[in-house]
Parts: sequence; structure tokens; C-alpha cells
Amino acid sequence: MQIDLNCDMGEAFGDYKLGNDEGIIKYISSANIACGWHAGDPMVMDKTVRLAVENGVAIGAHPGYPDLMGFGRRDMGCTAREITNYLIYQIGALQAFCRAWGTRLTHVKPHGSLYNKAAADEATARAIAEAIIRVDPRLVYVALAGSGGGFMKDIASEMGLNVIYEAFPDRAYTSSGALVSRREAGAVLHDPQVVAARALKMARDGLVTASDGTEIAINPQTLCVHGDNPQAMELARTIREILNANGITVKASIS
Amino acid sequence: MQIDLNCDMGEAFGDYKLGNDEGIIKYISSANIACGWHAGDPMVMDKTVRLAVENGVAIGAHPGYPDLMGFGRRDMGCTAREITNYLIYQIGALQAFCRAWGTRLTHVKPHGSLYNKAAADEATARAIAEAIIRVDPRLVYVALAGSGGGFMKDIASEMGLNVIYEAFPDRAYTSSGALVSRREAGAVLHDPQVVAARALKMARDGLVTASDGTEIAINPQTLCVHGDNPQAMELARTIREILNANGITVKASIS
Amino acid sequence: MQIDLNCDMGEAFGDYKLGNDEGIIKYISSANIACGWHAGDPMVMDKTVRLAVENGVAIGAHPGYPDLMGFGRRDMGCTAREITNYLIYQIGALQAFCRAWGTRLTHVKPHGSLYNKAAADEATARAIAEAIIRVDPRLVYVALAGSGGGFMKDIASEMGLNVIYEAFPDRAYTSSGALVSRREAGAVLHDPQVVAARALKMARDGLVTASDGTEIAINPQTLCVHGDNPQAMELARTIREILNANGITVKASIS
Amino acid sequence: MQIDLNCDMGEAFGDYKLGNDEGIIKYISSANIACGWHAGDPMVMDKTVRLAVENGVAIGAHPGYPDLMGFGRRDMGCTAREITNYLIYQIGALQAFCRAWGTRLTHVKPHGSLYNKAAADEATARAIAEAIIRVDPRLVYVALAGSGGGFMKDIASEMGLNVIYEAFPDRAYTSSGALVSRREAGAVLHDPQVVAARALKMARDGLVTASDGTEIAINPQTLCVHGDNPQAMELARTIREILNANGITVKASIS
Repeated sequence: MQIDLNCDMGEAFGDYKLGNDEGIIKYISSANIACGWHAGDPMVMDKTVRLAVENGVAIGAHPGYPDLMGFGRRDMGCTAREITNYLIYQIGALQAFCRAWGTRLTHVKPHGSLYNKAAADEATARAIAEAIIRVDPRLVYVALAGSGGGFMKDIASEMGLNVIYEAFPDRAYTSSGALVSRREAGAVLHDPQVVAARALKMARDGLVTASDGTEIAINPQTLCVHGDNPQAMELARTIREILNANGITVKASIS
Repeated sequence: MQIDLNCDMGEAFGDYKLGNDEGIIKYISSANIACGWHAGDPMVMDKTVRLAVENGVAIGAHPGYPDLMGFGRRDMGCTAREITNYLIYQIGALQAFCRAWGTRLTHVKPHGSLYNKAAADEATARAIAEAIIRVDPRLVYVALAGSGGGFMKDIASEMGLNVIYEAFPDRAYTSSGALVSRREAGAVLHDPQVVAARALKMARDGLVTASDGTEIAINPQTLCVHGDNPQAMELARTIREILNANGITVKASIS
Repeated sequence: MQIDLNCDMGEAFGDYKLGNDEGIIKYISSANIACGWHAGDPMVMDKTVRLAVENGVAIGAHPGYPDLMGFGRRDMGCTAREITNYLIYQIGALQAFCRAWGTRLTHVKPHGSLYNKAAADEATARAIAEAIIRVDPRLVYVALAGSGGGFMKDIASEMGLNVIYEAFPDRAYTSSGALVSRREAGAVLHDPQVVAARALKMARDGLVTASDGTEIAINPQTLCVHGDNPQAMELARTIREILNANGITVKASIS
Repeated sequence: MQIDLNCDMGEAFGDYKLGNDEGIIKYISSANIACGWHAGDPMVMDKTVRLAVENGVAIGAHPGYPDLMGFGRRDMGCTAREITNYLIYQIGALQAFCRAWGTRLTHVKPHGSLYNKAAADEATARAIAEAIIRVDPRLVYVALAGSGGGFMKDIASEMGLNVIYEAFPDRAYTSSGALVSRREAGAVLHDPQVVAARALKMARDGLVTASDGTEIAINPQTLCVHGDNPQAMELARTIREILNANGITVKASIS
């Protein structure tokens, strides 16, 4: 058995640091690298692609809205054509760094508000898929597993893209399989042992226990580890240890 | 006989228009397309790449400094590594639009202050060549023909890149073969007939008449037509007509 | 009798031109000047404030979202606190240019998507009023006249601000007094005589004829002339002539 | 006896943190607050002005070049008029937050590359002074004390501005009174006791010991504490304790 562990990386900008990429990369199998719009810049992208290559980690684009001030977490009211072109741009920029380091881009995972909107809005989901198809149809589209994935999940498949489904071990789920909103108490789990146990259940059984105790089948192929909190490395390490201890290999499904 | 006619294009941004790309593209053979830093944005890049494809015009990247407010015309004091990474980023972004439209990028021509600095500063010239080599060594480096080309010209060749030399029919030259600074009177020529006659002399004889009357050998392979003034289309048309009337084909040297 | 004629100005950016400020300013009494976020930059602000001072035109801030690429026309999903602080920033920046030219700021008119959202969303309307109160409570809040003004109109008054109501002679109105969406045919009127006649009716009678023929009372104190189309100057001139010919003085209500 | 202790603050941006403003503000008397160009944004400015007001600390503008990616540390090749207008804009924006919090701006200290250039380039020094004069001639111009201050120091005085001279206890000085370049070893001192002893000597005797052992008179009125390193708070606290223990009051000269 195997599963992919992914983490958003390269979210520093200029003199500003963010996350502990060097620490976390040892425990993951896929890095989603910011492309200079919601976060990241060419110096950071160069460094992060190199870091991924040196650690044998698969590289994905993590494109977002043109909103550094809001870190790509605000909906921008973009048209579908704008979203497609914004993603072609960002994916292409990161692909160039991949070529510069002798590797290739494997996947695309939209960031923040764009990720959320793709689940809820068909035109957005389609616009993202369109960008991938136009730049390189072999790129894998990372979509939210379970009912929360909504249009993001359905449209990508319908349009013939390779999709892999993602789950969040440190996030609470509703009984219908959607993520509990961050604005609600208990939406984010912090105890490494608890989170790692959830990761194991997701990886081994394809299940997550919802807030009300229901067992939900979400069948993820990749688990996301958040990199922007102080315990991120501890969390990544614990998840990997528990997975390994249970005979599950951490490995990019796409490489 | 043949020569390339190139023009900087895709320099609009958001709601802001600039130049008459649709008008000029009919007369040129290569378009240098802005990459979203000193000018251009993904919507403009998409539209301009499509326009070039539809008109059978070769597509080059026209990367610049991260200074939209100064239109890339101010020196930014960047390090060599910054320049290399900024160009990898911009070239990659434009390549993605080329793939999206089923074509490929052929050349790279730095914009504004970066172009000027590459002639005068060895580290900058090297940083640009390094970016090209890392992204795709087949890309052609467009450098200023004649003595004005300085390091830009020499380093690109030394590093084994394909270089083509560019001349400016509407700019005055010094007797040593450099461009007369725009700050001096008479630096820019406006009469279409005069400019076209100079273009012909450059293309047919490899010569330019300097301000002091000296004949200088500059042997260009591509002639630049400026697109950001009202007579730009008239100028492009006249140059092409005179070249054609003298048996010189306008054709990208790289396609 | 008198009425104010206002126009959005200073929307150029760097090398990019927009509108015909020098032409239009002769016919208006108030200029709403962009503050460097959705459009404008410090060079443009300096030039436009000077132009307004030289022409005896009242100066207002025309703040917008941090989205130059979208020209402030996309909703950004900002929080109320973000909107308040973004406006404090932009209003303050323009006030400094007013002091530099020996004049003072008189009013604030939100731009684009922010203007529209203030009508439809109470928190946004309140956030804008809060910015004005915190920077200088004497500043006048320009709000859409008629039912379309919604929360923008009501909240500003409720919070004790000086409000003046604005109407658009070149826009179609619904029978309930709201603007017809630009996406519908006929939403924008182009004939200078027609637009000027509507302006006169608005100024003299406080009325607008809705698309279905109904007469609606909107009682505006200022009429907006759009500056970003080719006929803008012609439109401004015609409106002013007809108003003057009917004994109505074009004059800022606030100066 | 008294001296001012100043620190650059409010250099966070969006989700990005920088420095320990809350910790350091307890020990200083003046805060130089970034204005949203090289660092800072309206949310950060609002928070930082409030923090300064709550701690009774004088507020200055800390304007920089439009280069967030380079943190204002790269020379931008701006014209004098551009610099003047960029500073009017930034100073005005911060003044609005001061009014919003019921206080006023007291001083202006240019940031990074702009600070350095003002010392070496007369036109830049003059452009900064011009901005201050046009926005509010009562604002104090903070200039580098000693020979290193160059044009920055001389022009501000010549133009009739209130100038206060600044020294850096944690920086090495040459025997001619200029700062040793950061590129040289030993340019920055880290031991809190050593730095505090230098601060005391500067405050009490007006002297600094240069790298070669020479005693130089620089007579500063304000001492800068850097806020962007881990020991910043420790450094600020130690300096203040030693000054106080020697009967020197830490107090803004301008409030």
C-alpha cells in the first residue's frame, strides 16, 4: 500500500519567510510550489524546485489569484477566461524552473480561494481544467476528495484529466464529507497523534470520522500536510512514521 | 536575400491599451511579447500569441524588470541571480501560452533598461544568457548589432548561444557604431521614407550612416520597428515595401 | 439653480494613458481622482491635482480595490476592516497631493466594484463611511441617488456624514430607480443630445425617465460624466451647454 | 540629558510577519513606519500606528521605493520628480492613519536604498526634502549623522528643514565617520553589551570609535535600533537600560 503526502511550499516572498520547507520536505512525497502571484517569487521558486529535486519529491504548481496582500485567500470575481490564462501563466513559469533543474512538473493544485471556488463553481472548475489541458494534458489535477470536491472533482474527470483526490488529516469533516469551515471551532486539529491517526485511517481504509462521529468514505490518493504553522514539521514526521509503521509507503502517485 | 523585421508587442495591461499590434503584425516577421512584468498580463499574452500564430509571425519573449510603473525602463540594481531567475520565470510563462496555441517560442529579447544594461555590464549579459541556457538553449538571444552591443553581444556568443544581431532603422548611430542616446536631439528619426531607406541599407549592405556621415558596418540580421508611436504602422509598412521592392524578403531567421 | 458635474480622472498609470482629462476638465466642477490602487500613480496624481487646481475644480478621492489588472472592477472579498484601512490609505495619499498644491480634498467617491458593493452590502457601506469619519468627517460621501443607492446612501446618512447624491445621465434606469446592468443592451446611452437632455431633466426636475417610460424622482446633486470613452469631451461639453442655456450653473456643491 | 531611540516598524505585509514590533516598542521613543511600498500595508499601518500611540512613541514615515520584492534595498533609477511624488504619496497615506488614531506624524526617515542614495546623490537628497516641504514643512528629516550623511544631511539643512542626525550603535564606522559597508566583515555588531556601550558613548559624548580605533565626533540626536533580527528586543532593552543607568532619558526630540 502507498499514499502520497503533499505540502504547499515556496510561499516566501522577497525578504519574507513563511513555513519550514527544508524541515518538512524530508517527510513528504509531493511539493505544491507557489508561482509568484499569491505567494512566492522567482528566487523562491528556483530555491524550492531545487530543494524538491534534491529530496526526490514530485513538483506541482500551486497557482493562485493575483493578490499577494490577501495571500490568494480572497475571491477575486475573475472570469473563466481570466482564470484559465492566469493559470497558464503561473504553470508555465514554474515549468521553466523545472526544466532549469532538469526535472518536470507533475501536477497542479489550485491555491486558497481558487481551490475552494473550484469546488463550488462549475465555471471555475472548468477554467482550471482548461488551463491544464492547454499547457500539458498529462499534468495531474489535484482535487478535494469526497463530497466537498464538488465541481472541482467532477469536471476534471469529465474533461478527461488525470485527477487525484486529496484529503486533509488535520481538518474536521461534516457528515456529508465536506470540510468544516475554518470559521467554526474545532475545524483544525492540532494534536500530532490525533492527526496522524486520521491520516492512517484515510490512507488504509479510505475513511474519515466526521464531527458527528459518522464514518465517511473519501478514498484519498494524497494527504495534505499544512506547512505554515509551528508544528508543521512535527506533524509531517508523525504522519509519515505512523504510515510507515503500518506498512504504507509514502510515495508520489505521479512521477 | 532576406531579413527579419521585429516589433515589441503585447505591452497593454488590464484596461490599458498600448501600440497597434493588430495593424503592425501584418508587416513584421517576429513579435517580441511582453511577459507581464514591465508590461503585458496573461490576457494580453494569450491574445498576442494567438495574433502572432494567426499571422505566421515568430514569437519571442520580451522580459523586463518587475517595474510596471516605470515600464521596465529604470535600472533596478538586481543581482545576476535575480536577473537569471526573473527571466526563467517570464520566458516560462510565455512558453506556456505558445504551447497553448500549438506553437513554440523562438527567441528572447530583453526589454528596456535590461537590454541596455546587458550591453554595458558583463554580469547582466551573462545572467540573461544563463537564463536562456537553463530554460532552453535552442532559444535565440537577440543582441544589439555593432559596437553598441557590447557585452550583450560578446557574452552570448562566448556562452555558445545562438545570437542574432539587431539594428534600429529609426535611431541615429554614433561613428563608433553605438546608438545616440534618446536624450540627444535627433536620436530618433520620424520620416518613414528616411527610416525605410536606412532599413534597406542595413539589410542590403549591412551599413548604417552615422550622425557624422561615417558609414559603419553593423551587419544586422533583424531590424526593430517600434510599435508605440502613432506612425508605427505606417513606418512598418513603408519599410517592408521598400525591402520587398528591392528583392529582400522579410522573414524570421528563426522559425 | 445649480448642479455639480463630476468626472473620474487621473486613471492613467506609468506610461499608460487613459481618458482625456485636459479636455474634459474645462466642463466639469468636480474631479474624482484615482489613488494609485485600481488606477493612477503618484506622478499622475500630482499632475491631476494640479490640473484640477488650475481649472478651479473640486477634488475628491476615487479609491478602489488593490487590483490594477482588473481596474478595480472585480469584487475582492475584502473584510470591512480591510476596506476601511484601504480607504484611509488612499484618501490620505491624495490629501497629501492636495496640500502640496495648496488646496484641500472635498469628497470621496468609491470606484467600480467598491461603489457597487456599497449599495448592495451594508458592511461595505459602513466600512467606507468609517474611513471617511476617521480621516476627516467633513469629507463628503458621494452616493448613488435613487433606490439603486441602497445601503451606500442610507448608511452614510445614518452615520452622520455629509452625503451628496449622484446620477448618471448616460445610463438607463429601471422603473424602481436602479441602474440597468451594463450587461443588458441599451444600458449605456451614447447620443450627446439625448444624454444632455436627460442631464437637464435630472438637474432641473430631479427626474429620470426609466427604460419602461416611467418618470422616477431621484433628485441628484451631482451628475457623473464618464471620461474613458472617445466622445467623453463632446458629452461633457454638450451637457454643460444645455444646463447653462437653461439657467443652471455647473458648480461643485462642496468647495 | 536625553536622546531619541528609533526603530523601523510595520514592515510586515499581508500574511507575512517581520520583526517584533510589540516587543521592541516598549524600549524606543520613535517608530519609523513603513508606508506600503517596500513593506507594510494598510492593515499593518493601522495596527502599528495604534501600537505607537498606545506606547507613547513618536511616529515617523519610513517611505521606500516601489519594490516589495527587493524590500526597497535596490536602487530604482528614479528621477527626482518621481522620488518627490512617491514620498508625498507615502507620507500622506501614513498621515491619514495618524489622524485616524488622533495623533500626528512627526518625522520622515527614508528607507534602505533611498536613504543610502540621499547621502551620495544631491538630487535625491533634494527630492526628499522637497516632498517634506510640500506635504508639511514641520516634519523632521532624519539624516545620517557624520560624514556618511553627505548630501542628505547638508541639503536638508540648506533647504531649511528641521533635521535630526541619526547614528547606528550596532554598525562599524570608518575613521572618516562613514558606515562600514555591510559587505565587509565586522560591519554589524551583535553583542548587546558592546552595542549598548557604543550607544552610551554616542549619546553622552557624541563619539563613536571607528574600526581603526580613532574617536570620531558624530553628535547624533537619535540612535537607530534594528528590529529585524532575533536579538532586536534584547538589544533595545540593553541600550535603554544602560542609557537610563547613566542618567540619559530616552525621549523623542520631536513630539
